Amino acid sequence: MTRRARGTKIVETSVDAESRVHDDHHVSLRLLLRLLACTGQVENRVRQFLQTKFQTSIARFDLMAQLERTPEGLNMYELSQRLMVTRGNVTGITDGLESEGLVVRAVDAADRRVFRVKLTAEGQRQFARMAREHERYIIDLFGGMSTKNKRQLMELLGELKHLIGSSER
Amino acid sequence: MTRRARGTKIVETSVDAESRVHDDHHVSLRLLLRLLACTGQVENRVRQFLQTKFQTSIARFDLMAQLERTPEGLNMYELSQRLMVTRGNVTGITDGLESEGLVVRAVDAADRRVFRVKLTAEGQRQFARMAREHERYIIDLFGGMSTKNKRQLMELLGELKHLIGSSER
Repeated sequence: MTRRARGTKIVETSVDAESRVHDDHHVSLRLLLRLLACTGQVENRVRQFLQTKFQTSIARFDLMAQLERTPEGLNMYELSQRLMVTRGNVTGITDGLESEGLVVRAVDAADRRVFRVKLTAEGQRQFARMAREHERYIIDLFGGMSTKNKRQLMELLGELKHLIGSSER
Repeated sequence: MTRRARGTKIVETSVDAESRVHDDHHVSLRLLLRLLACTGQVENRVRQFLQTKFQTSIARFDLMAQLERTPEGLNMYELSQRLMVTRGNVTGITDGLESEGLVVRAVDAADRRVFRVKLTAEGQRQFARMAREHERYIIDLFGGMSTKNKRQLMELLGELKHLIGSSER
């Protein structure tokens, strides 16, 4: 079914159904705004936490998290794809982490023109400590919501994610 | 109750309860990751849509949306607060929109050292057109989810947002 057909199919059946459609349209926009507001609020709190506790940014934390999951390292292209940020940003963050001895650029064995970024032993230690504290912070932050509601929220977000991922472009 | 007390209180009661706590901790982290992934996917699609259809960015669209809601205009500080971006970013976007005749900087009547940014008539026309198409796009994008599930998702996101907004810093 095309998106257009899906969006308008009920309009043609009756006036009552049409009023439901308009109501539904309104719900979609409100849902988008609430999703963005909720995520923005979570990100602000995580940003504050990482800044206050570790003087680091979400971008640095996320980059180190990607490297921690990939011991063989990632090149700049792979990092920018996974983090969904520009190559320039990845380079800047990598430079900063490298100057602090937390990551290292190593020549790729398969393609000697390419550098792979890896966590150093000190980078691994620092990230493990940050990840532990970050986890505790999130558990506390979400602590007031019941497990049942968290699971339900996760399921509904999963449905939305799947829907958007599979819809036509 | 402190966050720490809330996060650990069940651990002290029994082994079964403890395993439930660990399970719940796991759910919180997964919920965070899914929330970020879902929002990221929505934002990517909206970014693509605005770029393809109107050769504009989410940042430009959001700035114009703020001005549309505030006919008396907003100064740079207010804009950066509402959009949660830096003053430098707001200045850059405003410069671009001004050069295209979509916004104008006017001296604030109350404080003549301050400029207020307003939409021009052409800016209002363009934004109205973009907002209409953006609304249709979101309705299509979310079209595959039932209104019941959308409402439920909105309610749960509202609970999380409220929770985070009211928790201790």
